[in-house]
Amino acid sequence: MTRIASVQRVAMRHPGDVSGVAALPDPRSIVAILGKTEGNGCVNDFTRAFAVQALCVMLAARMGTTADDVAARIAMVMSGGTEGGLSPHFIVVSVSDTDAPPTGALAIGTAFTRDFAPEEIGRMAQVEATAFAVREAMAQAMIDEVHYVQVKCPLLTSERIAAAGAPVATTDTYASMGLSRGASALGVALALGEVAAVADSAIGVDTSLYSSVASCSAGVELTRNEVVVFGNSAAWAGDLRIAHAVMQDGIDLPAIQAALRGAGLDTGSGQLPPPDAARLVALLAKAEPSSTGRIRGNRHIMNDDSDINATRHARALVGGVAAAATGRTDLFISGGAEHQGPDGGGPVAVIARR
Amino acid sequence: MTRIASVQRVAMRHPGDVSGVAALPDPRSIVAILGKTEGNGCVNDFTRAFAVQALCVMLAARMGTTADDVAARIAMVMSGGTEGGLSPHFIVVSVSDTDAPPTGALAIGTAFTRDFAPEEIGRMAQVEATAFAVREAMAQAMIDEVHYVQVKCPLLTSERIAAAGAPVATTDTYASMGLSRGASALGVALALGEVAAVADSAIGVDTSLYSSVASCSAGVELTRNEVVVFGNSAAWAGDLRIAHAVMQDGIDLPAIQAALRGAGLDTGSGQLPPPDAARLVALLAKAEPSSTGRIRGNRHIMNDDSDINATRHARALVGGVAAAATGRTDLFISGGAEHQGPDGGGPVAVIARR
Amino acid sequence: MTRIASVQRVAMRHPGDVSGVAALPDPRSIVAILGKTEGNGCVNDFTRAFAVQALCVMLAARMGTTADDVAARIAMVMSGGTEGGLSPHFIVVSVSDTDAPPTGALAIGTAFTRDFAPEEIGRMAQVEATAFAVREAMAQAMIDEVHYVQVKCPLLTSERIAAAGAPVATTDTYASMGLSRGASALGVALALGEVAAVADSAIGVDTSLYSSVASCSAGVELTRNEVVVFGNSAAWAGDLRIAHAVMQDGIDLPAIQAALRGAGLDTGSGQLPPPDAARLVALLAKAEPSSTGRIRGNRHIMNDDSDINATRHARALVGGVAAAATGRTDLFISGGAEHQGPDGGGPVAVIARR
Amino acid sequence: MTRIASVQRVAMRHPGDVSGVAALPDPRSIVAILGKTEGNGCVNDFTRAFAVQALCVMLAARMGTTADDVAARIAMVMSGGTEGGLSPHFIVVSVSDTDAPPTGALAIGTAFTRDFAPEEIGRMAQVEATAFAVREAMAQAMIDEVHYVQVKCPLLTSERIAAAGAPVATTDTYASMGLSRGASALGVALALGEVAAVADSAIGVDTSLYSSVASCSAGVELTRNEVVVFGNSAAWAGDLRIAHAVMQDGIDLPAIQAALRGAGLDTGSGQLPPPDAARLVALLAKAEPSSTGRIRGNRHIMNDDSDINATRHARALVGGVAAAATGRTDLFISGGAEHQGPDGGGPVAVIARR
Repeated sequence: MTRIASVQRVAMRHPGDVSGVAALPDPRSIVAILGKTEGNGCVNDFTRAFAVQALCVMLAARMGTTADDVAARIAMVMSGGTEGGLSPHFIVVSVSDTDAPPTGALAIGTAFTRDFAPEEIGRMAQVEATAFAVREAMAQAMIDEVHYVQVKCPLLTSERIAAAGAPVATTDTYASMGLSRGASALGVALALGEVAAVADSAIGVDTSLYSSVASCSAGVELTRNEVVVFGNSAAWAGDLRIAHAVMQDGIDLPAIQAALRGAGLDTGSGQLPPPDAARLVALLAKAEPSSTGRIRGNRHIMNDDSDINATRHARALVGGVAAAATGRTDLFISGGAEHQGPDGGGPVAVIARR
Repeated sequence: MTRIASVQRVAMRHPGDVSGVAALPDPRSIVAILGKTEGNGCVNDFTRAFAVQALCVMLAARMGTTADDVAARIAMVMSGGTEGGLSPHFIVVSVSDTDAPPTGALAIGTAFTRDFAPEEIGRMAQVEATAFAVREAMAQAMIDEVHYVQVKCPLLTSERIAAAGAPVATTDTYASMGLSRGASALGVALALGEVAAVADSAIGVDTSLYSSVASCSAGVELTRNEVVVFGNSAAWAGDLRIAHAVMQDGIDLPAIQAALRGAGLDTGSGQLPPPDAARLVALLAKAEPSSTGRIRGNRHIMNDDSDINATRHARALVGGVAAAATGRTDLFISGGAEHQGPDGGGPVAVIARR
Repeated sequence: MTRIASVQRVAMRHPGDVSGVAALPDPRSIVAILGKTEGNGCVNDFTRAFAVQALCVMLAARMGTTADDVAARIAMVMSGGTEGGLSPHFIVVSVSDTDAPPTGALAIGTAFTRDFAPEEIGRMAQVEATAFAVREAMAQAMIDEVHYVQVKCPLLTSERIAAAGAPVATTDTYASMGLSRGASALGVALALGEVAAVADSAIGVDTSLYSSVASCSAGVELTRNEVVVFGNSAAWAGDLRIAHAVMQDGIDLPAIQAALRGAGLDTGSGQLPPPDAARLVALLAKAEPSSTGRIRGNRHIMNDDSDINATRHARALVGGVAAAATGRTDLFISGGAEHQGPDGGGPVAVIARR
Repeated sequence: MTRIASVQRVAMRHPGDVSGVAALPDPRSIVAILGKTEGNGCVNDFTRAFAVQALCVMLAARMGTTADDVAARIAMVMSGGTEGGLSPHFIVVSVSDTDAPPTGALAIGTAFTRDFAPEEIGRMAQVEATAFAVREAMAQAMIDEVHYVQVKCPLLTSERIAAAGAPVATTDTYASMGLSRGASALGVALALGEVAAVADSAIGVDTSLYSSVASCSAGVELTRNEVVVFGNSAAWAGDLRIAHAVMQDGIDLPAIQAALRGAGLDTGSGQLPPPDAARLVALLAKAEPSSTGRIRGNRHIMNDDSDINATRHARALVGGVAAAATGRTDLFISGGAEHQGPDGGGPVAVIARR
């Protein structure tokens, strides 16, 4: 018996619409659900929690268990924000056993950290617990090469700050999202040897420290980190392959094309031809505004816009570049890439069918 | 003596920063200034009027005349909205005489309509006056092939509606921007024979009627239409060429690449190589959300978002796709493409140096 | 045995936080739950559906029934938008029997119309059925004087429009929400003799026709109107009283004070003294921008702001005025007041403990 | 010869509309113009700079001088943000000589600091220079009692941060607005003996240190602090009086009423009666969200809203409360009250005609 991963992309009509997921066979094989929901992706984005609640209630009924049990077993990683042309969708990741022979295919490992105290968020406690979880997930899934590590992490709210037992890393709720994502990414980097050491003072500050495969998303609905490691494994079966590349800035089309080719797709003269677009199962990328305020020398206004949050601009931009590359808009572009790729850039991973 | 057009792209640090334009030689040769300013591009975007005021005051001092005279002589087309990674900039278009021989180069013609009464906006009176102005500009500049027609048109405000002498086309100030742009675009289409006839009832309704070269932008600061026709002319000198294509939807990278190639640039395997990116002088495109709520079958949320206006999402998307194609972000992506290309798509024009 | 109404105001920490409602005794006596949630109150406000789902799942578990049954028995009226200082909260309305003598107290009556055909929405059929339901609810609860009528009404979707047996009132689904609210409010006005007659052509057009006690909200999940009438009845027991007044514009503090005094509170020299503020159980008001663009002659910018929806500005304004009057921020200020009070104003109702 | 102050409130149709100011007699007597413009009041609010440019160009023409000279002579304090029902307007403050006897009337003093280096903003250098300017303005105008000190101060932009010669107080451009306002307010407090001493570490941190009369507004268009001190002086003539009070929170109607009464107005049973509303010349107040996330125990969502900036919510709230008190919406409510009154509250000043 070998293991085989399956990845299903399912449209949603609104954040509470889980009918597409309900129509999938075998809910017990699901290990993770990633969702791109249409909220603002920032502090008061409740589309993520709404989608999680709807998924848990529906799956609990289908699986004959409780919603809490579903939440404990399946990593739910909702990323808010479908700016520009991005299309809200779920990515349902399942693992099952098969009689088919191993093919060196996509492999998935999951792990959760313990719950964090408010004062641990954005600090070394979160870095180290994340690193431990990444190694645990890799070992469990016998992953040879890691191409994407999805981490869902908590944030600080006014209420959590008031409840903290010690000084928190920041009292700015929005800033806490970035620190939590950054600490989580550095945990991935530490686990994979991308950085040798990290200290509290580097988190959110030293942009030269980063992971090339981490994708971290902060949400108000959880208090622990949830880790899903995607890679290829000689021990797994199936026709899916994953590859990745690192965008050096927000308009790095060549990096996206490299990831697409790495997963076996033909990028042709620019946009994937329709047969290759149809073989694309998922594109997962991080987006963030460059802190310099510039892209290849020209000023952008993301950091100075008080009407639209900078991460929303960044997702819209990278979403447009990735749509140009793929001819699709159901792409998992996630904002806030602190310590996830270089300043203003970020990792991009591609899962494709052979 | 032959005529020669010059196109200068100038960064701005904020909407009132005209220092880059002030540094250009020979202000008297300027016939049009296009600006991409960092407002919301909607009803209460005052960055456009601010930029126009700053340009007029500065140029009046340089030219020894009044700000009103500058506004009457130079077509000022400010388009608000630099969502995603777009970079605020001015495009300064000048025409002068030269002893150089004609080369079949970029040619520019400008014309203005009369002032419109509030009740004429978004109606046939605006269509016909625009068509007349387009023909006048073409003849004046001896343009053989038209590739881009920039129209700046007025909108209705609560005050103008109250002052109208007859029922206006709409009492919704935001909707008036779309009707004014649509009527202007149909005027271009009528002038170029792209449509045979138009009626009031088709404006803003019949999306099958459109121009493939019109780009219309509504602004609170004017009461007439200002028309700038860009094309190639056997009678003009210089090393600039213009070409265009029509994006069928917001992620039509191949159309943008076709326009780039039409202007003599090498699109390579996706993004312009740096030498070709350096020869790109201007990319001008229209963006709008598809009214179907879908892009190639997948739902987008632009039309249902009450936090960010749909045109802002559309500009961000097309800006990302065009940045993927060119490797640049100082692109003139303008929102609101009513009757400017097919539903959800729009014209894209490219000016490049040979 | 007499009937007694109870009204509990319960804070929520986020739109899915129903712990406060879960802590209330006797869920079976609940007849309605009003909620002020922290979304944008516009098209893509999913906080309303999130709260309803959370309430239904929680109450179903407590009552030993299904979520669908809970939704069928309890009128759930979620109103999005807590701009300015407004505080998210639920208002839980219960009715039970008591041995106490009648006191002339707050009485609650509920009634439902038949299901509407799509072509009836926003038209006289909806007006008349609503009027009938209002009279039915009044009779059932023996209400002597009506002070507040909450109506939840359907809207048109693309699917319903396609299924219609006759032309619908509008093919714009967003506009259908306003027409449905307007027709419902005129139904209330007709039932209470506030207007003598209504015609299809007046719905959404003639702002001089309005109810002084109606508060209507449209939701996609129903096809009939659900009516909850709040008034005083000689036959009911308890120490709650309700009163109302009509704000003539958004800054009509004297009208709010009149409603407070009508419910037995002392408005003193401006703001309720703390003992009276503590006796205030609920303040329910409608807010909308004046269509004239002015308040007492001075321009407001609500209708021209493309960053913040006009209804959000209006709720913030009326919320501030009502907070000035009461010294509280947990107030039910709801947007979208078609035919609910005069243009730019709206009804305000107050429930207080004696 | 005695001095006499005049205060004119002038409506504006848009941020560039200075026709109302142009219609005032004697531009040479103007010492300050306060403006409430309709931008977002945050980093990218260009309505302030637009209004300043329009005022300078117009006044330069009327006064036969240059725009730069106008800007150097008249303190221009534009405060963005007219949320809720607030009405955009200018407040033109003039000082002239008169033969009338002194009456103990409104007196105005102005002073400017030197230009600040980026690294001085939000630090003691700014505190001390502001304190010096306040004392200078008081002495110049022989002010006996200070009731309102308007300070306009600079902010950090991405470009200024890059140009700094030393580490700046913050690299977050939005946060720099708060630090600059806070340092300015502490300068006022120091000058008036409201605080004994200040240190860098207290700026933006120790909310127990504040001025009860400071109102500080940050704008991208200047690099120095501009100070206008308003008070009463035994040596000045005229029928204007100023008074102030301190709002303890955002819904402190009684404090606003105390300020109104202090200036000689009758607050009656809540809202100013029309004759008193007509005698109200200006109401100037600061607004900010409480850092606790609560108002009198109830949660507000201002600090957690990533769609609408917290200061916008706060202005809308205080604008509603002040409109309730006065029956007017042309009120100067300014956001961001760091060290200007207690946490969540702020000073309110009233100028009225006797």
